[in-house]
Amino acid sequence: MMKRKLLAAIVATSAASLFMLEAAAQAKPEVLVKQRKAAMTLQGKYLGPMGAMAQGKIPYNASVVQRNAGFLEALSKMPWDGFDPSTKGEKSAALPAVWDKPDEFKKAAERFENEAAKLAQVSKGGDEAAVKAQIGATAKSCGGCHETFREKQ
Amino acid sequence: MMKRKLLAAIVATSAASLFMLEAAAQAKPEVLVKQRKAAMTLQGKYLGPMGAMAQGKIPYNASVVQRNAGFLEALSKMPWDGFDPSTKGEKSAALPAVWDKPDEFKKAAERFENEAAKLAQVSKGGDEAAVKAQIGATAKSCGGCHETFREKQ
Repeated sequence: MMKRKLLAAIVATSAASLFMLEAAAQAKPEVLVKQRKAAMTLQGKYLGPMGAMAQGKIPYNASVVQRNAGFLEALSKMPWDGFDPSTKGEKSAALPAVWDKPDEFKKAAERFENEAAKLAQVSKGGDEAAVKAQIGATAKSCGGCHETFREKQ
Repeated sequence: MMKRKLLAAIVATSAASLFMLEAAAQAKPEVLVKQRKAAMTLQGKYLGPMGAMAQGKIPYNASVVQRNAGFLEALSKMPWDGFDPSTKGEKSAALPAVWDKPDEFKKAAERFENEAAKLAQVSKGGDEAAVKAQIGATAKSCGGCHETFREKQ
């Protein structure tokens, strides 16, 4: 009896896992591309003004930086599941390297996530020079990934 | 001498404020629309699976809900500055009511922000029924705003 219950539980769990995979796979390639582009668009929205502040093009505003950096940290985690192999044929600036060099792509993505998380952390302190330096490091990690994995714009 | 310094500081501050306004105004209407649509797209990405879980269409996964709810809380704050009056003429599903009833629009936006923040909070606990109820309340606050302020889809 216990064995049957255990078996039933295993079957149910497997079925649930399959269902989850199916649910994840249900997102159409064009939807995945739209979503990952949306994440990149918003990364630009919030990094842009911080970059301008770091370069002295607009006045530094600590509370704007703190808000933007918090948003950017969340956004830095959002694009990656959108680079599903099913999206290879979709119109996008993603280069084949995304799927040909998945480990490098993953590393580049994580580098950006880490820099964005560090920026969110540093922005909570009052050290303007440190914040500006970290804005630069974060922007560099965007560019580092785009260089190899995105068409020249 | 002190007075002159004070005056200089006031002038500098005013100039900085104008500069900030100018910098904010620099975002072109089509960019603002693209950014606010991006925020809505991502809200859909992360609310969608939670809605399916609340309705029992896919299995409940507490850690996915917690991650999605955290993302949604951040995303709930992102669209609103994109509804600048300069965007009235852009192609979008936004109805004139957005600008004709700004107070109502603001209230509807805040209702969604509050529900999303509450969901992020509740999702950190282990009460599945409470989480599912709050997913419903959050989805309802999306619909409540869309009813009045977005074209029927």
